[in-house]
Amino acid sequence: MDSMSFILFGSTGDLAKRKIYPALYNLFLDHSMPESFSVIGLGRRNWSNEEFQRNVEDAIQTFSRTPVDEDAMDLFLQSFRYHSLDVTDSQGYEQLYQFVRQREAELNLSENRMFYLSVSPKLFDVINSNLKQSGLIDTAGWKRLIIEKPFGHDLETARELNKKISTVFDEKEIYRIDHYLGKPMVQNIEALEHSNPVLQALWNKEYIANMQITASEIVGVEERAGYYDKVGAIRDMVQNHILQLLMMTAMHLPYEINAENVRREKKKVMESLRPLTKDDVNQDVVRGQYGPGIINDEHIQGYTDEEGIESSSRNDTFIAARLRIDNDFWKGVPFYIRTGKRMEEKSTRIVIEFKSPHRQRAEYEELAPNLLIIEISPNKGVTLQLNSKNSLNNGKLEPVHINFSRDQKDLPEAYELLIADAIRGDQTYFAHWDEVELSWKWVQPILEVFEEDNAPLHLYESGSMGPKASDQLINEQGFHWW
Amino acid sequence: MDSMSFILFGSTGDLAKRKIYPALYNLFLDHSMPESFSVIGLGRRNWSNEEFQRNVEDAIQTFSRTPVDEDAMDLFLQSFRYHSLDVTDSQGYEQLYQFVRQREAELNLSENRMFYLSVSPKLFDVINSNLKQSGLIDTAGWKRLIIEKPFGHDLETARELNKKISTVFDEKEIYRIDHYLGKPMVQNIEALEHSNPVLQALWNKEYIANMQITASEIVGVEERAGYYDKVGAIRDMVQNHILQLLMMTAMHLPYEINAENVRREKKKVMESLRPLTKDDVNQDVVRGQYGPGIINDEHIQGYTDEEGIESSSRNDTFIAARLRIDNDFWKGVPFYIRTGKRMEEKSTRIVIEFKSPHRQRAEYEELAPNLLIIEISPNKGVTLQLNSKNSLNNGKLEPVHINFSRDQKDLPEAYELLIADAIRGDQTYFAHWDEVELSWKWVQPILEVFEEDNAPLHLYESGSMGPKASDQLINEQGFHWW
Repeated sequence: MDSMSFILFGSTGDLAKRKIYPALYNLFLDHSMPESFSVIGLGRRNWSNEEFQRNVEDAIQTFSRTPVDEDAMDLFLQSFRYHSLDVTDSQGYEQLYQFVRQREAELNLSENRMFYLSVSPKLFDVINSNLKQSGLIDTAGWKRLIIEKPFGHDLETARELNKKISTVFDEKEIYRIDHYLGKPMVQNIEALEHSNPVLQALWNKEYIANMQITASEIVGVEERAGYYDKVGAIRDMVQNHILQLLMMTAMHLPYEINAENVRREKKKVMESLRPLTKDDVNQDVVRGQYGPGIINDEHIQGYTDEEGIESSSRNDTFIAARLRIDNDFWKGVPFYIRTGKRMEEKSTRIVIEFKSPHRQRAEYEELAPNLLIIEISPNKGVTLQLNSKNSLNNGKLEPVHINFSRDQKDLPEAYELLIADAIRGDQTYFAHWDEVELSWKWVQPILEVFEEDNAPLHLYESGSMGPKASDQLINEQGFHWW
Repeated sequence: MDSMSFILFGSTGDLAKRKIYPALYNLFLDHSMPESFSVIGLGRRNWSNEEFQRNVEDAIQTFSRTPVDEDAMDLFLQSFRYHSLDVTDSQGYEQLYQFVRQREAELNLSENRMFYLSVSPKLFDVINSNLKQSGLIDTAGWKRLIIEKPFGHDLETARELNKKISTVFDEKEIYRIDHYLGKPMVQNIEALEHSNPVLQALWNKEYIANMQITASEIVGVEERAGYYDKVGAIRDMVQNHILQLLMMTAMHLPYEINAENVRREKKKVMESLRPLTKDDVNQDVVRGQYGPGIINDEHIQGYTDEEGIESSSRNDTFIAARLRIDNDFWKGVPFYIRTGKRMEEKSTRIVIEFKSPHRQRAEYEELAPNLLIIEISPNKGVTLQLNSKNSLNNGKLEPVHINFSRDQKDLPEAYELLIADAIRGDQTYFAHWDEVELSWKWVQPILEVFEEDNAPLHLYESGSMGPKASDQLINEQGFHWW
């Protein structure tokens, strides 16, 4: 691994505390950080290095998945410096440049610079311009940019944002984090198919009846009411996470797993995804909003009663949809997605339902179909549901769940895997601009129909699995949600 | 279930004690015996009914898989009577006839009669003739015959034996016990394939590289030296059990699972099994005999040092063979079998190795192939070996074993399942004469080559997995034993 400077915008923010510092610390423990590195935390506050380091340590104490080792922590924190910066002040970047170089000299680092923008996307533009002007990006080593979602608010704003970023960083230097791509079980999907001839043989329309992607939450809008009311489930979950899961599941890798192949095949999936017209939306998409209900014996108020939400809000807190991928592998296989807040359970999972030709036989009518279930969170694991004779029940055929989770303790966090990849320069599990653009393109008609309020808004009870219309959507083809 | 008389020849013997009485008792507890039934134990000894019942109870106390319930036992034993019979004395059968009818009258039974011949096959003929002459088989209800292996000593004697039996009982009335067919995991094989589209899709030459059937024992000849030295592993294990396992694994059921379909498809397998000429034997069959060795830290003597075995014996205590099934499903897929005594472990299992097209890729060279492992005894279960990413090991692809055993406690014994089937008149898991005859036909050239001592006799160390020649046999196609 190359020595490097890790320049973190938003170093006093919540994401840094919860995810980035614990990830860096665990990578450090795991010998997955370069031998020499400089972390420079940026923020408006006037912190001393010591204050910053204490904050980093506190964050790690609170959020690290492994207990803190004091000696390792001391060594780790020696790489951390704080630098106060008003991101809109171009003068400040001159000083930052000097500071970065000073640390590079002190630590004898190559001029590799990772810029991590853990700040509002509104600031991406000004930061980028200033990075360019200041000379910080004119480096003899590599420069890389890590950015977090959201990438735009719709197709147009996403394109604008990307255009601006592209004037400073090349696509090969941009690491767009979709943290779902960092989840171990998501990274396992293509490996599962790719490394198992028995699954590879089955991974197509001949054997698969439908695929279902569920991402349900129990929580409501929490502290994000103002933001969430403007984006809804369609932007918050579907355009990014759910479509990424779809790409990961539906792609077919021709040869080896590397960034180029993965991204090309994901793009192919998006290109084959049947576009929706605005007229299609009501047929293939269900918009829902949670009403009152009971979760864990607690009365839950409806979305429009939440603090910070207008009582007239027509925002979507639930989306279900039927997608079609018109390529040789998947023609005729419906892909169902659903996501929502205030649902019965917290679960992100992909269920692949295999065709059941035998169910046309009377004796097997009640036999369960074969399923491959990839549980992403909070449970992590892969389960195959097969049928087997139960000798304790007169040899009756019954479904058995074959779980091949490993011991799931101590699995690395998504941010660990992703930051480690960025440090090593591996873009495999970052969203390429093409994917982002094609995703926005696909959701754009839905955004517009919702904007115009030309789709029914189905209320669903808090604590349920969504509105009845979601069940009807999948029942139309004779299936049901797993 | 029809009321019936269960007429047991050899009622004082070892099999009756260890297997038949415990099976009947557990079926009784499980409400799988007819409401009214008469058990008539036959033997040369002059036992009273009470002596017989005490012996039955003792046997059940010792060998039943479930603890004895005294009330149930009392009720159960009320159906048991003893009748002294010299099986060669035709007069005795007249009295037996009267006794069976007397019990039928007392218990108000229909004239359904199950004759269970738990005696030496040498006696089959005389018993059958006497049954015929006595009128015992001229019944208004059904008559059925349960017989135990061996069915002959070679093709000719098997045919003679069958011819004789066939003059008294119709094929539909003959229940030939191969107790391997009663094992729950063997009965699960076709159900597994048949009820799981994902396995059904893979159950052919396109996806399967080879199949391996292993039946290894740790024990030596034990008390059966004289008998075993005349039959060898080829008759004791291959002609019956192993070829039955082969048929169960290789058959393809077109529609529903019933006796007729299963037997037709098993026969098809045997008809497609490539015949061996005597010249082929040395190419495709490995004959072995155990030498001295160490098992569980104990010194084990070689076969020819065993009591009751001639020091010059050339008997086979180990067989490995490569078989070919020349039909559309299996052309080109080698089936490997091996069985022996004094081996490293006790295990009966079937391993299906799937093709690994991906292994031609450098990155996957070391990847394990996908396996389906059906463990029959002493462990019972089905395991699928797939590859999965290990996030704890840098995302390295590693084999995972997916075990879908149920809770294996209290599984019914083979004899329970088989006797229950015979009572219900279901021949699915009994060996049809066609299967027996075709099996003898296939092994006949091997018997002859061994008889002529025209095959090498490979000595193997006790406690090993057989002679090196067995490994070479499978290595020739680039495979190895699992």
